[in-house]
Amino acid sequence: MKSIAVRNIERANTNTIAGLAEHGVATVHEAQGRFGLLNPYMRPIYPGARIAGSAVTVLAHPGDNWMLHVAIELCQPGDILVVGLSSENDDGMFGDLLATSAQTLGIVGLVIDAGVRDVPDLTAMQFPVWSKAVSAKGTVKATPGSVNVPVVCAGCLVNPGDVVVADDDGVCVVPRETADEALVKSKARVAKEEDVRKRLAAGEMGLDIYNMRERLIEAGLEYKE
Amino acid sequence: MKSIAVRNIERANTNTIAGLAEHGVATVHEAQGRFGLLNPYMRPIYPGARIAGSAVTVLAHPGDNWMLHVAIELCQPGDILVVGLSSENDDGMFGDLLATSAQTLGIVGLVIDAGVRDVPDLTAMQFPVWSKAVSAKGTVKATPGSVNVPVVCAGCLVNPGDVVVADDDGVCVVPRETADEALVKSKARVAKEEDVRKRLAAGEMGLDIYNMRERLIEAGLEYKE
Amino acid sequence: MKSIAVRNIERANTNTIAGLAEHGVATVHEAQGRFGLLNPYMRPIYPGARIAGSAVTVLAHPGDNWMLHVAIELCQPGDILVVGLSSENDDGMFGDLLATSAQTLGIVGLVIDAGVRDVPDLTAMQFPVWSKAVSAKGTVKATPGSVNVPVVCAGCLVNPGDVVVADDDGVCVVPRETADEALVKSKARVAKEEDVRKRLAAGEMGLDIYNMRERLIEAGLEYKE
Amino acid sequence: MKSIAVRNIERANTNTIAGLAEHGVATVHEAQGRFGLLNPYMRPIYPGARIAGSAVTVLAHPGDNWMLHVAIELCQPGDILVVGLSSENDDGMFGDLLATSAQTLGIVGLVIDAGVRDVPDLTAMQFPVWSKAVSAKGTVKATPGSVNVPVVCAGCLVNPGDVVVADDDGVCVVPRETADEALVKSKARVAKEEDVRKRLAAGEMGLDIYNMRERLIEAGLEYKE
Amino acid sequence: MKSIAVRNIERANTNTIAGLAEHGVATVHEAQGRFGLLNPYMRPIYPGARIAGSAVTVLAHPGDNWMLHVAIELCQPGDILVVGLSSENDDGMFGDLLATSAQTLGIVGLVIDAGVRDVPDLTAMQFPVWSKAVSAKGTVKATPGSVNVPVVCAGCLVNPGDVVVADDDGVCVVPRETADEALVKSKARVAKEEDVRKRLAAGEMGLDIYNMRERLIEAGLEYKE
Amino acid sequence: MKSIAVRNIERANTNTIAGLAEHGVATVHEAQGRFGLLNPYMRPIYPGARIAGSAVTVLAHPGDNWMLHVAIELCQPGDILVVGLSSENDDGMFGDLLATSAQTLGIVGLVIDAGVRDVPDLTAMQFPVWSKAVSAKGTVKATPGSVNVPVVCAGCLVNPGDVVVADDDGVCVVPRETADEALVKSKARVAKEEDVRKRLAAGEMGLDIYNMRERLIEAGLEYKE
Repeated sequence: MKSIAVRNIERANTNTIAGLAEHGVATVHEAQGRFGLLNPYMRPIYPGARIAGSAVTVLAHPGDNWMLHVAIELCQPGDILVVGLSSENDDGMFGDLLATSAQTLGIVGLVIDAGVRDVPDLTAMQFPVWSKAVSAKGTVKATPGSVNVPVVCAGCLVNPGDVVVADDDGVCVVPRETADEALVKSKARVAKEEDVRKRLAAGEMGLDIYNMRERLIEAGLEYKE
Repeated sequence: MKSIAVRNIERANTNTIAGLAEHGVATVHEAQGRFGLLNPYMRPIYPGARIAGSAVTVLAHPGDNWMLHVAIELCQPGDILVVGLSSENDDGMFGDLLATSAQTLGIVGLVIDAGVRDVPDLTAMQFPVWSKAVSAKGTVKATPGSVNVPVVCAGCLVNPGDVVVADDDGVCVVPRETADEALVKSKARVAKEEDVRKRLAAGEMGLDIYNMRERLIEAGLEYKE
Repeated sequence: MKSIAVRNIERANTNTIAGLAEHGVATVHEAQGRFGLLNPYMRPIYPGARIAGSAVTVLAHPGDNWMLHVAIELCQPGDILVVGLSSENDDGMFGDLLATSAQTLGIVGLVIDAGVRDVPDLTAMQFPVWSKAVSAKGTVKATPGSVNVPVVCAGCLVNPGDVVVADDDGVCVVPRETADEALVKSKARVAKEEDVRKRLAAGEMGLDIYNMRERLIEAGLEYKE
Repeated sequence: MKSIAVRNIERANTNTIAGLAEHGVATVHEAQGRFGLLNPYMRPIYPGARIAGSAVTVLAHPGDNWMLHVAIELCQPGDILVVGLSSENDDGMFGDLLATSAQTLGIVGLVIDAGVRDVPDLTAMQFPVWSKAVSAKGTVKATPGSVNVPVVCAGCLVNPGDVVVADDDGVCVVPRETADEALVKSKARVAKEEDVRKRLAAGEMGLDIYNMRERLIEAGLEYKE
Repeated sequence: MKSIAVRNIERANTNTIAGLAEHGVATVHEAQGRFGLLNPYMRPIYPGARIAGSAVTVLAHPGDNWMLHVAIELCQPGDILVVGLSSENDDGMFGDLLATSAQTLGIVGLVIDAGVRDVPDLTAMQFPVWSKAVSAKGTVKATPGSVNVPVVCAGCLVNPGDVVVADDDGVCVVPRETADEALVKSKARVAKEEDVRKRLAAGEMGLDIYNMRERLIEAGLEYKE
Repeated sequence: MKSIAVRNIERANTNTIAGLAEHGVATVHEAQGRFGLLNPYMRPIYPGARIAGSAVTVLAHPGDNWMLHVAIELCQPGDILVVGLSSENDDGMFGDLLATSAQTLGIVGLVIDAGVRDVPDLTAMQFPVWSKAVSAKGTVKATPGSVNVPVVCAGCLVNPGDVVVADDDGVCVVPRETADEALVKSKARVAKEEDVRKRLAAGEMGLDIYNMRERLIEAGLEYKE
């Protein structure tokens, strides 16, 4: 596999990204038709963050974080680093020094299918990370990977420039080409849900709101006393 | 497997349930003879909640949350939804809309051997959930399951109307028939532990309080300098 | 396997231990050459604790916490209990009563390759624990193990008297004989990192600070526009 | 939890059991409506066995096989030992001596949600076992459990006297009360499948045999060239 | 996500595919630069098979095998079905009937990031499958997915028409566009390895053949007596 | 961590090793007091092998098999390579070329807490391996580790020169110093078991042979009809 780093990638519209961040993972994922969700083993290192940004993708090897240094230089403010590995490994490939550099350059977060370290510092800095593991195990810089190529991260394909949305529900990838459409659908979904929420809060049953009663009986459900 | 929903179930006494909630999982589980604990992979979505309630049980299929709508209607205030699956799956079967409905109807929490989504909202609403995973992956409504039948949830049998106790230690199921007895034993245990706690806090050794020294030597323990 | 409990172990210098606690897991682990880290499945029961202490080691059997009572008596103020198991098990071998005794005796924390219970109480007491699981499942006292023998805990060898450092990044073991050296190297590392951090915060690239550009090209990296 | 051993249990009809064995796990499980399957982590220790028998159930504690000795005595020829644990553990609770005793008494196999040892001997004896793990770790005989009570084994409820079917596809439990019905339905299913198999082998498409084409288009499927 | 089925895909040259099959997974994976390997949890249902074929890709939902029927019709002799799921699930989506149909149509094997059933029949038919699990749990046909779109299977991106190579070492994906090149490199690798094998078999050390001695010392290795 | 390779290690007596091989893992492990068993996730790549040998230990880094080349040169006929990793990784660190070299030098097997590749070749060569995974993913040679230092392999401490016994039950480590004693105890155990086996085969109950009846009742067991 050749080792390449692509300098220029297309990104989605800034307002679109901001709008997707506002709606959050659950809404955006549902709005775009329930795909693009990373495996739920990806967890935030501290609760409460909600971000979106353009993916700068990294393909790295187990126990080797060399490419993260290459990737950081290719980021723009508002980007999110997305790291996939060539095979499973939990080593802590990212810590407070890389986070200092990333935050200085305006990178808004990290999504990594491996480990992260210096969690107390990252929490104090409020630099959000979604990772597979927390591990203090440091890494070498021996084998080059690639930057801004398509990567599989936590079971999901991520292309450079895709919009990544992340919060306490996990991480969702929105293809760059359909990001505007995903935002439109997210807004529509929220509007529609707001009405349903009011009716549920007033005590109406979902069975009635969604007209499920008849379909359930047809599908074979029997009520017993 | 026929799909049925049982409307009326027997529940334990309200005061008993409240008493069990007060004592918490570790005490109740030990008091009833160390059974009824769900697998420790069941974790709360936020720390600090401690609840007890009557189980309304749901048997659902992977990636399908249809039965939760059926189950919610059959709940009474003070109930806890307990969801078991016909095979392993982490999809987010429950989110803020179902939580709004559940909270409106007085349901006090959810225990689900699958995923949950909208965790930021559920946390803000203080609707407690113990789940196997957090996942934004939504579900379909295509295959009916059952409500208020015996289910296996996280490795433990739960019958409808059993008392479910849940806190940061996990989730414990108390059979409805022995709930009163479990409360009596919990109280006795707490009283006895209070005395032990004072002696330990005063510096006495557990080895002496529990008369273990002789038994240990008999069992073969040798001290070396 | 004979069951033994060793009363007297050598410990590292108190100031050394305090110094290692201050630097934390990620720094100490890296400073001593990246070994001694326990498997990252070991997680703290609440965030924010950072401790170091001398290991009093316990070899226990699945579902049996008898040896913890033996071990506690052999501890000195400043010690950390480190529990390895003869085979995998998640039962809650340690709860609020043992924690009361431990805290009274000046034990500063617990590292256990099994489960822990009474997490709400332990959190309130601020008695820090790093464990493989949270489980309310209590244990029996039937089979003796050993205290203060070498144990494997979460994939890492721990000798009695080794210095254990633990924080939100996990748990690291420093051999007693090299603890002073590890502290010296930790201090050196922090000093050096402080300079790098400032340069990164000023916008310099890691690629330049670490002189990586040439090596990357030699290793085959190609930049593309 | 009281420790009890129930001597007399009801069993299904011998011919029914033999018929279910002949059809195997996949057919029986589907025929009875897709429930009763143990978690797929249960694997045979050698390929090729296919058995059915009446469940003599054992509830045991981690690392303790005492109850297996009690259970063996309560078995009849044709029975299968089914062992559930009070918490997860992989220790080898069953080996060649217990297998010798079991085979002598006419027990046809073991299903155990834990480990098994002496696999080379058991294979030579052709005593089939489905287990969660292979482990040479022996166990103690210290804490009594129960025999012939309902147990949860690998995520599935098993009542004493239920029919257990096991082969290379895994393990399926058929409630004693519906065993005859399950056999009837299995036979019907096999007959029906035989016809489908012939049509498929002749090159017909499942899409046509099952009339799926129209439903797929209604459900939104679009074909593209 | 729209549900589509693409009828016509490009495939690699038949001779190329046959050549890759001959070389096997380990050689091809190494020859193409160590990428394209599916997660090692993918295991063959019986030992000894070695195949290669063109990928007809399927994106399916948990517990739903509807799309496999659609996909089979779109296969040509020599194809391999590759199934990715929208979220993790182990249900047995493929059994002897689908295998009969597949084998009749000349499909040479199945690679599925889920479960498979009827393993005794599939073994007798010698229809090879690499799967995440063996499970008799059948599935519904309720939610359409897609056929011949890019899918992530066991952590690896697979495009329709890519060459899939599978044997007891696992499963490797070769992009269609570089399949010829991968075969050339595989042959070169085998030729080179043959020479090394002879030298090793004659007692030469890898340290000498690969000229590692000096580099090891430079890298810090110290020999001790 | 300094990188060292120790040339000369002490080994146990050849006859002792041969005797331990004959008795197998389950007997030896039990005979030496139930310790020294590697985690049961270590599985043989093909069934039927039973070996014992002196451990030449390797500490390697994830994705890097450089030290295996160093270790092979330091082996004597009859040795077993035992590989522990500095952090979890499944890459295939050992394949047919290393196996050719190892077999030529008289090395009798490999025990590796990582992956192995070329399984079809290794099976044909009858070179037995116990590993955590099968993976075709090759490795780099970039970071030196150590040879013949104490390593933790699959949760168990292994010192250079310890006797490793491996068969279908897993892998057991016998400390060199107590290998003779372990053999004596293994023989005694087999002799004793032979008598028990005969009595069990004649239909006697373990409950009677081991005098368990009274102890069970004392422990609280109640029989019910």
